[in-house]
Amino acid sequence: MSYPIIFDTDPGVDDAQAIAIALRHPEIELLGLTTTYGNVDINVATRNALLLSELAGRRIPVAQGAAGPLVKPRHPAPAHIHGANGLGNIDLPEVHGRAEPIGAAQFIVETVRARPGEVTLVAVGPLGNLAAALQLDPGIVEAVKRVVIMGGSIKEGGNVSPVAEANIFNDPHAASRVLTAGWPLTLVGLDATHRCVLSPADMDAIAAGQGELGAVLKGSYAFYREFYQQALSIDGCCPHDSCALAWLLRPELFTTARGHLSVVTEGDAAGQTLFAPEGRAFIDERWSRTPLVEACLGADGPAVVQWIVDTLK
Amino acid sequence: MSYPIIFDTDPGVDDAQAIAIALRHPEIELLGLTTTYGNVDINVATRNALLLSELAGRRIPVAQGAAGPLVKPRHPAPAHIHGANGLGNIDLPEVHGRAEPIGAAQFIVETVRARPGEVTLVAVGPLGNLAAALQLDPGIVEAVKRVVIMGGSIKEGGNVSPVAEANIFNDPHAASRVLTAGWPLTLVGLDATHRCVLSPADMDAIAAGQGELGAVLKGSYAFYREFYQQALSIDGCCPHDSCALAWLLRPELFTTARGHLSVVTEGDAAGQTLFAPEGRAFIDERWSRTPLVEACLGADGPAVVQWIVDTLK
Repeated sequence: MSYPIIFDTDPGVDDAQAIAIALRHPEIELLGLTTTYGNVDINVATRNALLLSELAGRRIPVAQGAAGPLVKPRHPAPAHIHGANGLGNIDLPEVHGRAEPIGAAQFIVETVRARPGEVTLVAVGPLGNLAAALQLDPGIVEAVKRVVIMGGSIKEGGNVSPVAEANIFNDPHAASRVLTAGWPLTLVGLDATHRCVLSPADMDAIAAGQGELGAVLKGSYAFYREFYQQALSIDGCCPHDSCALAWLLRPELFTTARGHLSVVTEGDAAGQTLFAPEGRAFIDERWSRTPLVEACLGADGPAVVQWIVDTLK
Repeated sequence: MSYPIIFDTDPGVDDAQAIAIALRHPEIELLGLTTTYGNVDINVATRNALLLSELAGRRIPVAQGAAGPLVKPRHPAPAHIHGANGLGNIDLPEVHGRAEPIGAAQFIVETVRARPGEVTLVAVGPLGNLAAALQLDPGIVEAVKRVVIMGGSIKEGGNVSPVAEANIFNDPHAASRVLTAGWPLTLVGLDATHRCVLSPADMDAIAAGQGELGAVLKGSYAFYREFYQQALSIDGCCPHDSCALAWLLRPELFTTARGHLSVVTEGDAAGQTLFAPEGRAFIDERWSRTPLVEACLGADGPAVVQWIVDTLK
């Protein structure tokens, strides 16, 4: 089985690991990386996307996208989590390649249209590029195979607000457009990713298997790990973005439910994903009017981590 | 130890059981019942409050309060859950007493002021009466002993929307005023009450011990139970309102955390209680600016149910 994907990303330490999986896994056909601001500024995101594929010895198209949110003002990039360079402030080699002449949204539309019914969009940052692609060509809703989103939180609580996960919080208007577009969609949010904790020993195994790329993954991870220790008292890191790929290839490791998503765009709950399970009646029908999607409500964390390590070791 | 309380209520099947506990428990000194619309219309709430204390052979002051929300339009009373008469549509005896000449808010203020530092307000319906009392006399914030609220949901999800619990949803503006007033406050929400399921056998034991009052509790419970079976596939009912009293007398049966509450008043998340744990940093400080309160995050459900049964059997 082969999975042709576009990976939409704001690398980012956990993005870097997921990109490594997308580059290395024999069943993934990586058609391109589309970049967005989020964990880092857009120019840094594009540089890192180019760099990571070069370190893996691959030439993957990289198309640059959103430099900020659709509607709300932008929060500064979280340099205390990912480092100012997005990769834990380690020294990085020079990049040789360049981004595509077309932007991320157009790249998504053209790539999906070239292989109707085949391409899965895996998005692990703020969702502006997918929203922009829908603006250019709403018909891609029928032309994609599936959309897999790392983002949101159903019952787990948030990581940037009491209820909001960072990717959705960063651009709730784009998220609202993308999560309610009506395409086949799976949300892999904190309810799943917080079950997965990658230990320093896991990271050593990954570094040993990935050569020059492995050194960057391991060096950046050390920085990311400090944040987890200080802010959350966890010794290890949640490999959020890798979980989206884990779901795609090993969905049996996740528990999911069908239901309707809405995204709160304003106020103290902005960025929250509201999930109305299929068939559940509430006091008003408004939460059940959006298209049905699949949302992860949990994961076999150790098994997901093992899959990541097995893929990269 | 004795607990002088005012019980603010919209009876309601589960309210009726909690009122029975307040009337019967030897350590509770029930200073008065204040009524609000919510599960039923306000006149029905007042009639039921009078009736329940008469059936227990007590004369407790009943002061009538809010007939609707502070700001938003009112949803109709949920007759499919509590019955049109609030007590499962069973035949009810006539009421002999009358409500107090003063309203609920004034009753709260005068009662609290008469015994400074002694009175606990236990509120198990929409929070308009407490908001109105704060409007009349903001100084009661320092004069109450504690405020215990059955309402809200931290991580459990909602019961009238994907994220909102009914009492808070019914009057989010009043809830916002009350939950952020700065008085010593404990929130007993769905994270705790959904752990507690009262079985038909438990209800038989309660009915056997409560004479004429027990027949009303049991008859109304049968109606309420049908809702739980059909809507939630549970054989039994969550004794939401009794949990507020269980927390007051047996706090060791609950797990709690200190933090800051905000209430969403508008939009698709309206009625949600946002909880920022003490000391937890988010992307913005706005969620941590409200006064510290205590929120229940769980409960030893079987032990709480046993306490209810032991109190009433």
